[in-house]
Amino acid sequence: MSGTTSGGTHAEKWAENPTSLGAARAAGLARVASRKLAVLSEATRNAVLEAAAKRLEENAARIVSANTDDVGDAEELVQAGQMSGAMLARLRVTEKSVHEMAHRVRGVAKLADPLGRRLAVTELDEGLVLTRETCSLGVVAVVFESRPDVVPQVASLALKSGNAILLKGGAEAARTNESLMTIWREALNESGGVPDGAAQMLHSRADVMELLTLERDVDLLIPRGGKTFVEKISRQSRIPVLGHGEGICHVYVHAAADLKKAEGIVMDAKTDYPAACNSVETLLVDMDIAKEFLPRIVDKLRAAGVEVRGCGRTRAAASDVKVASEQDWETEYGDLILSIKVVDGLEGAIAHIHEFGSGHTEAIVTEDLAAAEQFLSEVDAAGVFHNASTRFADGYRYGLGAEVGISNGKLHARGPMGMEGLTTYKYKLRGSGQIVSEYKSGKKFTHRPL
Amino acid sequence: MSGTTSGGTHAEKWAENPTSLGAARAAGLARVASRKLAVLSEATRNAVLEAAAKRLEENAARIVSANTDDVGDAEELVQAGQMSGAMLARLRVTEKSVHEMAHRVRGVAKLADPLGRRLAVTELDEGLVLTRETCSLGVVAVVFESRPDVVPQVASLALKSGNAILLKGGAEAARTNESLMTIWREALNESGGVPDGAAQMLHSRADVMELLTLERDVDLLIPRGGKTFVEKISRQSRIPVLGHGEGICHVYVHAAADLKKAEGIVMDAKTDYPAACNSVETLLVDMDIAKEFLPRIVDKLRAAGVEVRGCGRTRAAASDVKVASEQDWETEYGDLILSIKVVDGLEGAIAHIHEFGSGHTEAIVTEDLAAAEQFLSEVDAAGVFHNASTRFADGYRYGLGAEVGISNGKLHARGPMGMEGLTTYKYKLRGSGQIVSEYKSGKKFTHRPL
Repeated sequence: MSGTTSGGTHAEKWAENPTSLGAARAAGLARVASRKLAVLSEATRNAVLEAAAKRLEENAARIVSANTDDVGDAEELVQAGQMSGAMLARLRVTEKSVHEMAHRVRGVAKLADPLGRRLAVTELDEGLVLTRETCSLGVVAVVFESRPDVVPQVASLALKSGNAILLKGGAEAARTNESLMTIWREALNESGGVPDGAAQMLHSRADVMELLTLERDVDLLIPRGGKTFVEKISRQSRIPVLGHGEGICHVYVHAAADLKKAEGIVMDAKTDYPAACNSVETLLVDMDIAKEFLPRIVDKLRAAGVEVRGCGRTRAAASDVKVASEQDWETEYGDLILSIKVVDGLEGAIAHIHEFGSGHTEAIVTEDLAAAEQFLSEVDAAGVFHNASTRFADGYRYGLGAEVGISNGKLHARGPMGMEGLTTYKYKLRGSGQIVSEYKSGKKFTHRPL
Repeated sequence: MSGTTSGGTHAEKWAENPTSLGAARAAGLARVASRKLAVLSEATRNAVLEAAAKRLEENAARIVSANTDDVGDAEELVQAGQMSGAMLARLRVTEKSVHEMAHRVRGVAKLADPLGRRLAVTELDEGLVLTRETCSLGVVAVVFESRPDVVPQVASLALKSGNAILLKGGAEAARTNESLMTIWREALNESGGVPDGAAQMLHSRADVMELLTLERDVDLLIPRGGKTFVEKISRQSRIPVLGHGEGICHVYVHAAADLKKAEGIVMDAKTDYPAACNSVETLLVDMDIAKEFLPRIVDKLRAAGVEVRGCGRTRAAASDVKVASEQDWETEYGDLILSIKVVDGLEGAIAHIHEFGSGHTEAIVTEDLAAAEQFLSEVDAAGVFHNASTRFADGYRYGLGAEVGISNGKLHARGPMGMEGLTTYKYKLRGSGQIVSEYKSGKKFTHRPL
């Protein structure tokens, strides 16, 4: 996260030399565009979003047609056992889902302007006023897999927050993504005022490798994918990376839990969408209620097709539970598998979470408010929940409009990252000729909040 | 910035095995301590700061005595030409400066509590309330050079913000730093409630190298030093790093500038403390006023011992100016040297700044408010100043109380970084058994700000 904020002429060199190819040229154009996007009025940004939403609706058939080709290829891969059915499902786009994309773009237009917000205004001295004000980051690159609705979602969040965007999707969705991006760029061109280079698609793996080296022209990299993918990108690039390596989330059923609520939450957190990073991987159950709760929940889980693995005390309390090894506590199954551990109270649960959790989302189920508050306060994670499913950890459900990614890290953005994660701030200091040496020889700062 | 937020038992292993040595053990103890620091009451944190301030004052003689030894060695190095006089000056501690340190520690105690601030409260649905709340980062490591007053300054900011701290100072100040840290730790122990491991000193280069690998137990690394040092640390560590590579700051004297103000600002920005990162390195002057302004400012600079280098147009307007090469525009002199370039108006100035600036602090001098606002809005830097010296870019002058570092990056913290940079936030969700699948079958979110 060191300082590489400039790049004007470097970028312009690329702009002047369009025979160069690949990510570097795209990033150069994006940098040039970002200078203009940063100062576009809110009205213009919203008008462009409206134009884009309209154009998506008008071209729904065109998008679905491109998608049909992608889906056709994907179906062959599924039949050949080279792609999962879930991945195919995420790839599919219908006219209805294009209208949903347009609806979400309009939703982003309706969000409050994230730019030019005054975070603090301080009078340093008479006639010397410091303002801390939000502004766009500049150029943001997002590398994602399968789901084509990421294209309008991320592009709209980037535009609303005054950022240029570079997108790289998965090969399996290439035609759908390209079609969505073409329509998006048509809308930008038609609207006028938005510079070319504001939204661009990267096409190859080589582009991504090149992208990682462009720290002068790219301010933030958001990899949306598996743990290995995110780690690889973080390791290879000097561009700041925000993303989540993994989601090892826990539900802890406390001794004073309402077991009916606990059942509902555990079943939702495990079975609603097992591939999601906010699904539960390990269930922690207090010893005091293990004998009562475990047989019930294990039966329900098994009935829902969940494979259950447990510690010795779990296996003593419920029948036919496989042995959980040390490895299980640190595994993100992303599947219908759940490991269960019996713990001795709140401290034990928190210790287990701090040892094996990934800092994503952790939930306690209890009717004891003091225990709940202790858990929320002591557990070190992006989301700490009381009597609610871990699956609520999501930008849309949190009311952020949408999300560009989820961060397990603690810096800049933590948890579901909405538009705010695509902004930074600058300090504007307005004076009338003040110099520092005067304040060394007696002059005093007022430091008065305005 | 990937997710490594846990570490409990790993940490505890180190705590149980104190025969292990070096940074890993210190970081493990720090992680254990950070869990407790995170939940200390504000009253306790402030009482400990007061105790530390008092103990510093009472032990001023002891600190000065340790410092006398460091200074003695340093004086020999200066005589041997192996240390600069400026470095020696920064190293020196007097009873008066110890009292100033204590005063600043009390100043930190007086700052508003950075923890538990509610950044947003949203009702997601009836009985399901989401709170975004500030909390401590965890374990912060600061690697710094010479100035021993960094020890109480950073230690107090860390304690106030509920973080454990690992400090590594320069060898030249080893005895002074050790003495300050011993006194600090005595105060923590005496106060009770503060876990051992809350503030620790690392001692060797090997400790620093080991530190870089401890991403599980260290949340943030702040290198305070030269460009090469900061870059090396960023490159070698997977721990998030905040710091500034360099300060290539510009003062741009616009055609409509008050030349008296311009003179004052340029002289202050260059000569007040040339080694500081917020000093000016390149002066940009509008062509329209070059003939009037340049001879005056060059004379004044030369009279103050500043070596002046300029572009062709500068050399045509003022006599005896050395040739500035392309290299000069990208050099942080940190010394009494200034490069000057004549530009054609605001656009030219901004383009030069975006090409060569480091995103630290950029100033315009003008009486034309529209030009000033355009500069503040378009220039992409942590600090954008109108009619004020770049030297104001500083945590204390900004009213942040003190600074733990300055960030040229755009993520998490930008510009002078106070206590807020040592905090993150978490989302607390309080429900009554809600599950996500209900909201897929018709139930609606209210998303009402509270």
